[in-house]
Amino acid sequence: MTTKTISVLQDLLATNKQAAAAIRQELSSRGILCINLLSSPGSGKTTLLESLADRLRGRYRMAVIEGDIETERDAERIRAKGIPAWQITTGGACHLEARMIGRVLSHVPAAIDFLFIENVGNLVCPASYDLGEDLRCVLLSSPEGDDKPAKYPQAFLSADCLILTKADLVPYLPFDPAKAAAEALSIKPGLRIFTVSALRGDGVDELAAYFAEALERLRSARA
Amino acid sequence: MTTKTISVLQDLLATNKQAAAAIRQELSSRGILCINLLSSPGSGKTTLLESLADRLRGRYRMAVIEGDIETERDAERIRAKGIPAWQITTGGACHLEARMIGRVLSHVPAAIDFLFIENVGNLVCPASYDLGEDLRCVLLSSPEGDDKPAKYPQAFLSADCLILTKADLVPYLPFDPAKAAAEALSIKPGLRIFTVSALRGDGVDELAAYFAEALERLRSARA
Repeated sequence: MTTKTISVLQDLLATNKQAAAAIRQELSSRGILCINLLSSPGSGKTTLLESLADRLRGRYRMAVIEGDIETERDAERIRAKGIPAWQITTGGACHLEARMIGRVLSHVPAAIDFLFIENVGNLVCPASYDLGEDLRCVLLSSPEGDDKPAKYPQAFLSADCLILTKADLVPYLPFDPAKAAAEALSIKPGLRIFTVSALRGDGVDELAAYFAEALERLRSARA
Repeated sequence: MTTKTISVLQDLLATNKQAAAAIRQELSSRGILCINLLSSPGSGKTTLLESLADRLRGRYRMAVIEGDIETERDAERIRAKGIPAWQITTGGACHLEARMIGRVLSHVPAAIDFLFIENVGNLVCPASYDLGEDLRCVLLSSPEGDDKPAKYPQAFLSADCLILTKADLVPYLPFDPAKAAAEALSIKPGLRIFTVSALRGDGVDELAAYFAEALERLRSARA
């Protein structure tokens, strides 16, 4: 990379950080907890959101911002659960940026508890972009392999929690959940780790409770 | 993205294209077929290369350039099969570029048939970078889902062949191989499609035969 390229990237990241800070402040003032989901393509982000929609229904209100290179598919799946969702199609860009979230924010209803952002499927680039979230969750699905944390360290280092997904497939795979967890913890000590099967619903209540606690803390700090 | 950023990116891609053309010419003059493997993290690129090493042994000689953000793990796995392998760690960059391949090229033995490049696990960014390959293969593993081609079109549009991996997991998944294939073909008509289970070895011979035919064509064109 040339010096010119690096300085342009630094400008972009600094501008992004400012936009993210404004989003964090606005959502916090509205008492909304924002959660950024980050993973490889096909790790189960949308399926996890569908499962959370079922578990949170009647107790909490949620909304979802979907990021994809192309198609409205993920937003349509979320809307089918009766959840407000906005699709951002980046048209080629490999990650979401705070200014893209900023443009959608005025549409987000005031009376919600959780705003989920499903990032573009990519375990590398989205890790560098703060979207104004309060919690960043990285998903690792069992078929991807237990060797991924050390190979893609920035995503794990920048996360608040790791969600090991597709636990139902573990019996059919050379995947050791304890090894994946230990490696992630060696990169980010204190990382909260959840194991879920969104298709079967296993572990989703524990994750929902973690989000509910974080929401409580946000609202207590504001009060 | 600002105009300045776009022009810097265009400069980078133009410089990359020149370096790729030089690599293609050099490898072609040596009679070596170069194959660039591109996919999400954990789609089975390294396991496929291990399986190909077993199938090609005694008939063809191969070498592998491994791209990862961090760790030598993949190169070590390939070397354990008795195959020469070089690890490029990008230290954060989300894709390989032709100049990175260029630096390794002088180490590649003259007497090989296939040079495989395993790109950084990322279904987005590597699609924009020509590495001087003769064939580009995109891998899609069954757990990732049959909806991925339309969501990540550039990877499929730029590929010569699609390899549907982890076929052994299909019975446990909501994955329709015919749907994935049809969607990929709607993006890239004429795309060659292979279905493999590298762990069981299913379909790997057909893929090896496809590479052998391409090698024959390269050497006939040179003669």
